[in-house]
Amino acid sequence: MTEQKATNITWHEHVISQDELEKLHGHKGCTIWCTGLSGSGKSTIANAVAARLYEMKASTFVLDGDNIRHGLNKNLGFSPEDRVENIRRIGEVAKLFTSAGVVNLTAFISPYAADRKIARDLQPQSFVEVYCYADLSVCETRDPKGLYKKARAGELKNFTGIDAPYEAPENAELVVDTGKLSVPECVDEIIKVLRKRGVIG
Amino acid sequence: MTEQKATNITWHEHVISQDELEKLHGHKGCTIWCTGLSGSGKSTIANAVAARLYEMKASTFVLDGDNIRHGLNKNLGFSPEDRVENIRRIGEVAKLFTSAGVVNLTAFISPYAADRKIARDLQPQSFVEVYCYADLSVCETRDPKGLYKKARAGELKNFTGIDAPYEAPENAELVVDTGKLSVPECVDEIIKVLRKRGVIG
Repeated sequence: MTEQKATNITWHEHVISQDELEKLHGHKGCTIWCTGLSGSGKSTIANAVAARLYEMKASTFVLDGDNIRHGLNKNLGFSPEDRVENIRRIGEVAKLFTSAGVVNLTAFISPYAADRKIARDLQPQSFVEVYCYADLSVCETRDPKGLYKKARAGELKNFTGIDAPYEAPENAELVVDTGKLSVPECVDEIIKVLRKRGVIG
Repeated sequence: MTEQKATNITWHEHVISQDELEKLHGHKGCTIWCTGLSGSGKSTIANAVAARLYEMKASTFVLDGDNIRHGLNKNLGFSPEDRVENIRRIGEVAKLFTSAGVVNLTAFISPYAADRKIARDLQPQSFVEVYCYADLSVCETRDPKGLYKKARAGELKNFTGIDAPYEAPENAELVVDTGKLSVPECVDEIIKVLRKRGVIG
């Protein structure tokens, strides 16, 4: 009997699919990849979209420095290889959340087009790149973490926008100008894209 | 006006909490960490629990070799350091899914107690270790992937249970004897634990 049961356990396996999880949640899984300079509003926009979607009873999750840098990616530094690996891992985790039927939002500078392409290519059908744009001068005025000040003082090296490049997306699904639009207006734009793509009803 | 709005974006930020996501899903987030020998039924049990929870309209996700080894952890081999890093990353991702209010299930041999402790310590309140137990002889008879055969033939080195150790959990929340219980019976046991801990109603 034991061996019979032992054999049985490979039978009739029902693996819950992404499709089933999406039916459960009432929307599709997708990644909203927010990229932009420090201070461009990525995190604010990502969280505001999550809050709006929550009102609509959608299942969301925000991946950002707070939950990634001190966790999954805590063994990565800021060398070129580590920056690539940082974004690669985030892209893989984002894909897992999409597979779980969750609308996931990432808020990382992700300055290199090649790295963002790696993340996109993992799930081309469900990847929405949102370029959070604001003039460098606007970002520097905001300077929410005081990082521009430190970079200008030479205390921070390789800071994106100051002494390290930011490669602006050329084919982002959406550009939101956070220097001109209010947060709710930016959220409206993103929600429109999600509706158009059939992520939400 | 631009700068006014720019300043505004740090105000009134509403970060959707784990508690809110749990309310949305109607249950708590938690990690069901299935550990055991190859062929002990980890993956079968994890997927069967997910299927049962799906019937109860719970939001679930299974992390296993299929979606981790070829994705997030594809740059890891089988050296001692890589094995530790493999489980560490899985533990971190599991924690993220718990934060998203999802009942996540992992199905990895995870033979070392120290590595499982790292995963547990990331979320001690929401970590349910399930030791999928079956006699080595039962596992070897099942041999779903033909790995024991290869290991016995010396074609696979460092195979857990043959020429690499498996450190059985001493304080698992649950031991399911997959050589004696049917899959639905194992699922019943796990569901009982989830009810007892208040993960599901």
